[in-house]
Amino acid sequence: MEYRKIKDEDKDEDAISDDIDNLRGKALLGVPVGNMATLGSSSSEQLKWKRKSIVTLALTVLTSSQAILIVWSKRAGKYDYSVTTANFMVEALKCALSLAALVRIWRNEGVTDDNRLSTTLDEVSVYPIPAALYLIKNLLQYYIFAYVDAPGYQILKNLNIISTGVLYRIILKRKLSEIQWAAFILLCAGCTTAQLNPSSDRVLQTPFEGWVMAIVMALLSGFAGVYTEAIIKKRPSRNINVQNFWLYIFGMGFNAIAILIQDFDAVMNKGFFHGYSLITTLMILNHALSGIAVSMVMKYADNIVKVYSTSVAMLLTAVVSVFLFGFHLSLAFFLGSTIVSVSVYLHSVGKAQR
Amino acid sequence: MEYRKIKDEDKDEDAISDDIDNLRGKALLGVPVGNMATLGSSSSEQLKWKRKSIVTLALTVLTSSQAILIVWSKRAGKYDYSVTTANFMVEALKCALSLAALVRIWRNEGVTDDNRLSTTLDEVSVYPIPAALYLIKNLLQYYIFAYVDAPGYQILKNLNIISTGVLYRIILKRKLSEIQWAAFILLCAGCTTAQLNPSSDRVLQTPFEGWVMAIVMALLSGFAGVYTEAIIKKRPSRNINVQNFWLYIFGMGFNAIAILIQDFDAVMNKGFFHGYSLITTLMILNHALSGIAVSMVMKYADNIVKVYSTSVAMLLTAVVSVFLFGFHLSLAFFLGSTIVSVSVYLHSVGKAQR
Repeated sequence: MEYRKIKDEDKDEDAISDDIDNLRGKALLGVPVGNMATLGSSSSEQLKWKRKSIVTLALTVLTSSQAILIVWSKRAGKYDYSVTTANFMVEALKCALSLAALVRIWRNEGVTDDNRLSTTLDEVSVYPIPAALYLIKNLLQYYIFAYVDAPGYQILKNLNIISTGVLYRIILKRKLSEIQWAAFILLCAGCTTAQLNPSSDRVLQTPFEGWVMAIVMALLSGFAGVYTEAIIKKRPSRNINVQNFWLYIFGMGFNAIAILIQDFDAVMNKGFFHGYSLITTLMILNHALSGIAVSMVMKYADNIVKVYSTSVAMLLTAVVSVFLFGFHLSLAFFLGSTIVSVSVYLHSVGKAQR
Repeated sequence: MEYRKIKDEDKDEDAISDDIDNLRGKALLGVPVGNMATLGSSSSEQLKWKRKSIVTLALTVLTSSQAILIVWSKRAGKYDYSVTTANFMVEALKCALSLAALVRIWRNEGVTDDNRLSTTLDEVSVYPIPAALYLIKNLLQYYIFAYVDAPGYQILKNLNIISTGVLYRIILKRKLSEIQWAAFILLCAGCTTAQLNPSSDRVLQTPFEGWVMAIVMALLSGFAGVYTEAIIKKRPSRNINVQNFWLYIFGMGFNAIAILIQDFDAVMNKGFFHGYSLITTLMILNHALSGIAVSMVMKYADNIVKVYSTSVAMLLTAVVSVFLFGFHLSLAFFLGSTIVSVSVYLHSVGKAQR
């Protein structure tokens, strides 16, 4: 056992690049990437491809339904529950779900080095970092609204796409081909175009401080995502539920700090679950499942797939909203969707050029 | 002489594909296309590349100044000259300029088979077709405004980009790589995005007849352009000024018909040059020079380069208008410009994949 563990950790670096290369040969959102002929080469390849497709699809569906729940909750009237307690509940639920999955695995497969919960300081020391970055980003979010309005912030959030691509390249040292970079710029431009509305031009009047904050937030968010992928991929054979458990434990911790900073009085006076409704519960459940799907995508795919998946989800949401809420699609939306679709296509053909 | 002519016509087909391949290796709007190493391979290559760059640049500059003249003339008040007589004058001026260029060439090089004005029925019989197509398109233009407003028509005109690409493929049988097709779709989406304004969504309410007319007009315009290229490239060694002379003679004829159909009474009552001003004269001069630049681009480059050139000109116009007329650039314009830039880049890298 001890021998196997050391061996595993020795080959970590190789395993990571193998893992990535295997994944790269596979699908993005069901579109085959690169040479189809490699798909049938082994059943383990097929399994990986299947797993990657399923987690990507799950993330897309969960993200779109998330946005739909938000629209629904807004229509149902202003929600006055505390956002920080809801975030804490999301982390707690993710933690509980990971633990439940682990218990099932232990019962079926027994406890191994890869799925045991106990850990080393070396393994666990990096796990608080993503949670800490998200906490800082969420705190900044309160201040940026002094410089931009909410629709403007939605537009600026598309900077996350670029920051994720840049940090993915710098931190994970993985190359995108020139065409994939072009596709990534198009993804950002396409998502922004799809969100254009008559008041979008106000975002151009954002003061310098607003731009700086938006860029810092995009970098924090991108860094948190890329760093999470680095942590999870560092130990490819480690069970994802153990990795998630530790990530979410620190997520709970940092969200507890956020409650203390921002909502301590409200929670003390009105109670922890004040203002919770059916829709709040559904949103917490959805966020928890989406969060787990994100971790799975980090494990079995990468941040680039995550960005494409959530961007496509944004478009799906709009289309579904037409049927659910009678929304009208704008010309800008059609143009943005076309650009995003071309971007997805270019990302997949661009793979061959790396 | 006679022998040479026959030989020339025999090798026409080869010469065309050679010509195209040489051009393909060169630049689009100054961006080197494909392998730079091939550029220095011969001085004739360099000459062709230079010629292609100059005509492309000329078309871009003339097209942008054309749009600026239109804005200027609108600001100067409604212009009440007859558009059909102005179109006729444009054709007449182009004809005169081609003839003047020919006279200079005859004086310097003497009259040869390639630059003599006399022609055969076989050569000249196809020249009226583009002029006839443009006439039909211009007549249709009067009817489409029953279904769409002027800004909506500007948006729908971007369909020309797609129709030109499709007809270029079908009629000239020249292949674009998959990435170049993606770039072409992006060019259309990018140009449309750059033109978006708060009232653009009305174009989605265009009735079926409006869409049909817009598509028919796009096809007529695309077909006229592609057919002109086919005529000009059919005889690569024929002097472009002779080819232009014949094209424009028929242009004058068909525009004379348009005057008879649409403006006969006005011309009879008010006179041919009624309402002409300095700006009208400048616009006619600009249209004539742009027209000649289009022919040159058809001869030394192709319709794809023409479409990219006029699209980039559209963006340049907007930027120049900021300085000249104090226009404000919209977020949509920035997004559209980014998408068009990526499209130009992809078109050039896509070349390698054909």
